[in-house]
Amino acid sequence: MPDSAFRLDPRLDQDCLSIEDWPLCRLLLMRDARYPWFILVPRIAGARDPIDLDATDHARLWAESARLSQAMRRAFSPHKLNVAALGNVVPQLHVHHIARDVGDAAWPAPVWGVGEAQVDAHDLFEHRIRALRDALPSKTP
Amino acid sequence: MPDSAFRLDPRLDQDCLSIEDWPLCRLLLMRDARYPWFILVPRIAGARDPIDLDATDHARLWAESARLSQAMRRAFSPHKLNVAALGNVVPQLHVHHIARDVGDAAWPAPVWGVGEAQVDAHDLFEHRIRALRDALPSKTP
Repeated sequence: MPDSAFRLDPRLDQDCLSIEDWPLCRLLLMRDARYPWFILVPRIAGARDPIDLDATDHARLWAESARLSQAMRRAFSPHKLNVAALGNVVPQLHVHHIARDVGDAAWPAPVWGVGEAQVDAHDLFEHRIRALRDALPSKTP
Repeated sequence: MPDSAFRLDPRLDQDCLSIEDWPLCRLLLMRDARYPWFILVPRIAGARDPIDLDATDHARLWAESARLSQAMRRAFSPHKLNVAALGNVVPQLHVHHIARDVGDAAWPAPVWGVGEAQVDAHDLFEHRIRALRDALPSKTP
């Protein structure tokens, strides 16, 4: 369960918009017009890898990942989802969820390190957040 | 649960060594000397994204991922684990587990698309498989 010592990593805070808190994770949108790109951050201080969570929270992380993935599939109809916990640059545990399409800015490569984020797209980001919310089941996971 | 129609993707079969079958997944080692790199492939025909599994298998996939991650941490003491389901090139659902160290061949970038795999290291691959086996709990997940 989330602990009060959790603070969102400053780099994630700078690069993303915070959408809402789920039972375990904070839900973020990456500010990059090129892809619908959401991130789940378990609100557990000090966690770096998924296995740093206890068994209950580990299961909850992937249940929340499934909930997000299903909503992204409904909202954005991607060709493929990319789901990844990397953390080489920002060690705080966070799980990327990226809706990929054939011909997108990095296809078929992974998105990291390809070109520059297109951060100046406030209306598009708001649209994505609305589309995701509309696609989420009303019940929390 | 695994189904009889499952066939390992030919590209994965070519690039990896098959180690053993767990209750849901086939465990592979990537033939690349640069990193300890294991892959879990749920033996479910047609699955592309984690959410293509039913709820029971989805939970089992991530439980098997945790079992593998814990053994990799014990066997290889990485600085960071990378856990990722991408599948842009090989759409068959497979989850990468890569033990990363500061200064490795791609650090801090993700490993995909960086340089060439060092495939000619049979003794090292056998050593990695033995080290992982020794670090696995005897009970299947």
